[in-house]
Amino acid sequence: MTECDDAVGIITKVTHVCFEHRLNIVRQDQFASTEDCRFFMRTVLDGDFAASPSFVDDVRAVLPGGARVTLKDGRRRRLMVLVTREAHVLGDLLIKCYSGALNAEVAAVAGNHGDLSDLCERFGVPFHLVSCEGVSRDEQERRMMECIDTVNADYVVLAKYMRILSPRMVAHYPLGRLINIHHSFLPAFMGARPYEQAFHRGVKIIGATAHFVTDNLDEGPIIEQDVIKVNHRYDAATMAKAGHDVEQMVLLRAMQRILDDKVFIHGNKTVVF
Amino acid sequence: MTECDDAVGIITKVTHVCFEHRLNIVRQDQFASTEDCRFFMRTVLDGDFAASPSFVDDVRAVLPGGARVTLKDGRRRRLMVLVTREAHVLGDLLIKCYSGALNAEVAAVAGNHGDLSDLCERFGVPFHLVSCEGVSRDEQERRMMECIDTVNADYVVLAKYMRILSPRMVAHYPLGRLINIHHSFLPAFMGARPYEQAFHRGVKIIGATAHFVTDNLDEGPIIEQDVIKVNHRYDAATMAKAGHDVEQMVLLRAMQRILDDKVFIHGNKTVVF
Amino acid sequence: MTECDDAVGIITKVTHVCFEHRLNIVRQDQFASTEDCRFFMRTVLDGDFAASPSFVDDVRAVLPGGARVTLKDGRRRRLMVLVTREAHVLGDLLIKCYSGALNAEVAAVAGNHGDLSDLCERFGVPFHLVSCEGVSRDEQERRMMECIDTVNADYVVLAKYMRILSPRMVAHYPLGRLINIHHSFLPAFMGARPYEQAFHRGVKIIGATAHFVTDNLDEGPIIEQDVIKVNHRYDAATMAKAGHDVEQMVLLRAMQRILDDKVFIHGNKTVVF
Amino acid sequence: MTECDDAVGIITKVTHVCFEHRLNIVRQDQFASTEDCRFFMRTVLDGDFAASPSFVDDVRAVLPGGARVTLKDGRRRRLMVLVTREAHVLGDLLIKCYSGALNAEVAAVAGNHGDLSDLCERFGVPFHLVSCEGVSRDEQERRMMECIDTVNADYVVLAKYMRILSPRMVAHYPLGRLINIHHSFLPAFMGARPYEQAFHRGVKIIGATAHFVTDNLDEGPIIEQDVIKVNHRYDAATMAKAGHDVEQMVLLRAMQRILDDKVFIHGNKTVVF
Repeated sequence: MTECDDAVGIITKVTHVCFEHRLNIVRQDQFASTEDCRFFMRTVLDGDFAASPSFVDDVRAVLPGGARVTLKDGRRRRLMVLVTREAHVLGDLLIKCYSGALNAEVAAVAGNHGDLSDLCERFGVPFHLVSCEGVSRDEQERRMMECIDTVNADYVVLAKYMRILSPRMVAHYPLGRLINIHHSFLPAFMGARPYEQAFHRGVKIIGATAHFVTDNLDEGPIIEQDVIKVNHRYDAATMAKAGHDVEQMVLLRAMQRILDDKVFIHGNKTVVF
Repeated sequence: MTECDDAVGIITKVTHVCFEHRLNIVRQDQFASTEDCRFFMRTVLDGDFAASPSFVDDVRAVLPGGARVTLKDGRRRRLMVLVTREAHVLGDLLIKCYSGALNAEVAAVAGNHGDLSDLCERFGVPFHLVSCEGVSRDEQERRMMECIDTVNADYVVLAKYMRILSPRMVAHYPLGRLINIHHSFLPAFMGARPYEQAFHRGVKIIGATAHFVTDNLDEGPIIEQDVIKVNHRYDAATMAKAGHDVEQMVLLRAMQRILDDKVFIHGNKTVVF
Repeated sequence: MTECDDAVGIITKVTHVCFEHRLNIVRQDQFASTEDCRFFMRTVLDGDFAASPSFVDDVRAVLPGGARVTLKDGRRRRLMVLVTREAHVLGDLLIKCYSGALNAEVAAVAGNHGDLSDLCERFGVPFHLVSCEGVSRDEQERRMMECIDTVNADYVVLAKYMRILSPRMVAHYPLGRLINIHHSFLPAFMGARPYEQAFHRGVKIIGATAHFVTDNLDEGPIIEQDVIKVNHRYDAATMAKAGHDVEQMVLLRAMQRILDDKVFIHGNKTVVF
Repeated sequence: MTECDDAVGIITKVTHVCFEHRLNIVRQDQFASTEDCRFFMRTVLDGDFAASPSFVDDVRAVLPGGARVTLKDGRRRRLMVLVTREAHVLGDLLIKCYSGALNAEVAAVAGNHGDLSDLCERFGVPFHLVSCEGVSRDEQERRMMECIDTVNADYVVLAKYMRILSPRMVAHYPLGRLINIHHSFLPAFMGARPYEQAFHRGVKIIGATAHFVTDNLDEGPIIEQDVIKVNHRYDAATMAKAGHDVEQMVLLRAMQRILDDKVFIHGNKTVVF
């Protein structure tokens, strides 16, 4: 994965470095943003990386200053999942990791309610209860961060975790580490109770949005979105039930792309190859 | 089309009246809203209506006070279309009325620019230029209303008419007469330049919304919505180009349902059978 | 649920019977097929059924001879699931029954391979291995039928059960009891290896079909279908992986409609309200 | 557009040639098929082509023997459209070319019925009646080919042309010149009357397929497909009406990609970047 300021000849130079290291290009995707002249490239290579220890440095050497070049292997990543009470998104992640459909393992789950502890146990996944009862908002969050930090996961997935993260908590993790699934087609229906908002607005579609978490609630870079059709017969509760499917599917697709190293963060947007 | 406060036995009573008038029920759809106990029913009948002049009154007699009962025949309706510069929505309406796919005729077109006059001429449809040049906003709108009133259309379709209607103009027409196609999946990206908003937000879907016009800009009852997928390669201009297709398709579907008398207005929502 | 030959006045007569039994109609859907004049009606009623023991008979009495009238309560149904090796469809059913999203319980699972026994165990669901090893095709099927008959399930779901049922086995169960999910948008790609067929044909969409099982392989009444987009980058294996999501979603929707008693079988088709 | 046998280092070599000719790579897409090791690449270049007359030859020189390298400018192409009686697809093409949404002009239309002559006249497009009346099938086709050859179009679009082309006629044009829109999601419902087939099969989706025409009826390389949902209330006629929208949208998208030079033919499939 390569990201740098755009310049003439980048593709040529990088492909030449690959060629010199005898790494064959299996697939290459590039994108140059016209608004801020930023260049993104994902290259899938085939060859003997052990024999090319200087490869990343050699690529960086031909790029403009400040380029970010990362080499990813396909190893199984560790997910930490944050939940409240709803089982469907966590359940789908557990099944998909279990069956190998997601190239990841659920390393741990933490929740502010204990409801999903039983489900985790069935898959042999540690569940951490970090209750809101009798503790300040700040303190509960501090404990949750402590819990997350212990797990040492590659990604922290908010799988219908119904708490707003404070700026402190968001700032504690690098951008791209925290992923949220929001139950509306953002930017419509930001904030609380999107299905109730959708019902009162009388929309004919509902949807879900997977995005990276930033300091601005529900405004982080969008990774994936999708919608389903509804009609006047749906109330907030039946919308929520119907929406569960699109929530889990949108998050699943987002996670698949992230785990395939296809997602770049570009300001408040994403480039998804 | 029947609309009234909900009560026990309505369906039985209405179907009985149909039976007594020897009108066979081909299809019947009902909906009772749980929030405000309002009842909506659309009944497709087969029989000799000329022999039953008292039918509507007889139906109304068995319903709670304040019921709205209307009998619609399938006659071809007259559309008036308001445009600015973009040809695709008007073009689709002209073709679909021309080919009979829409059970309507475009009786007249009015625009604040003359660009689409040539297209109208090709279909023998009168085009009225109501320019904004050298006149006040108020005066231009007054002339547009005058123009609309002359045409005496069943529905006025804002087919990418890029002017905000004043409360005076909206109030001048009964709710349900004015239909707008907005180029976003409302309530996301209300107001001006939705594709630029969508580009800057980095959404992965764009869409369109057909709605009845009310005093609150882009907040009227939604008739139909749909979306298409986009990605990081789209800028505002290519989003707009891709969005044209979904705009014309959403408006077409909305108009088909309206012309089939399948759409009820229910507060700020619609019931679409 | 009412099904009979179409005739004038049916809706009136049935609604009248409801009224006399003081059962309020919450929702009613009807459909009359024009090809064979068959009438289908689903009525959701609210009231004291215990006080109306003769209700179903009274409805039947006003209908043409041969009418089928059934009264369904909303009780939780028992599912038996047949599998081979793929975990995603079974996993989704287990999670959705576990979380209450499906109004059913997985009473038992049977498979011709033991791979999914562990997953069932995690949900406390009995798994029956009915292996094909060392037994004739006939004998394996006989054992499977025996196994199914022991479970006494309301529905038998073939959740990627990769065996063709013999006419004997199909005939052993009433039409509507056995439900299959086929991994193509039928009637395209009937039979074995639909994703390989799809890959070789170069289609731009793949899909899934939930249908009732009949004697004609992959030709039973279709309950639900959906598709997703693919492109030239997909081979048969990546199509299969991408297709898993649409398979499980299509089956889920089909089962939800069946469990809501919204599905009628009409010859080789379905009526789904 | 580059197409050749796959080999190590192709991307590097081609990008190097671009660099030497001072042509900047704006976008580049590649695909290498694993089944037959064929390599496809589309490169969008920015620079002074007039100053580089040897560019295409220089690219070809670094590729394996038998490579196909073509340089396309963005000029407006000429379409010839073949029709029978249905107006919607032709109408959409006329509007989209008229408004500039398609970078093409409808140079001429030919039909075996005269119904659409009036529509063509409205857009100033010559209409040629090549009637089937009183002439043999062979002779009608011979006249149609003569008519097509006179027009000298870049692409011949069969826009609901309800005649099967003979092998002789197909062979007369290079593969890729003739494009058909078929009113089903192929390979389902090949041949005549797909909506009737769909109705009798009881499918829950209908669709459309744009494909290049080959000798095998409805089996040519698929460019684009899409579907819409239907239900038991649709008969063959209402399916056909609903299907019109998806037919015209699928053909429009296919033509946009063809006119953007994004479509490669790969055996019986396409690569669409």
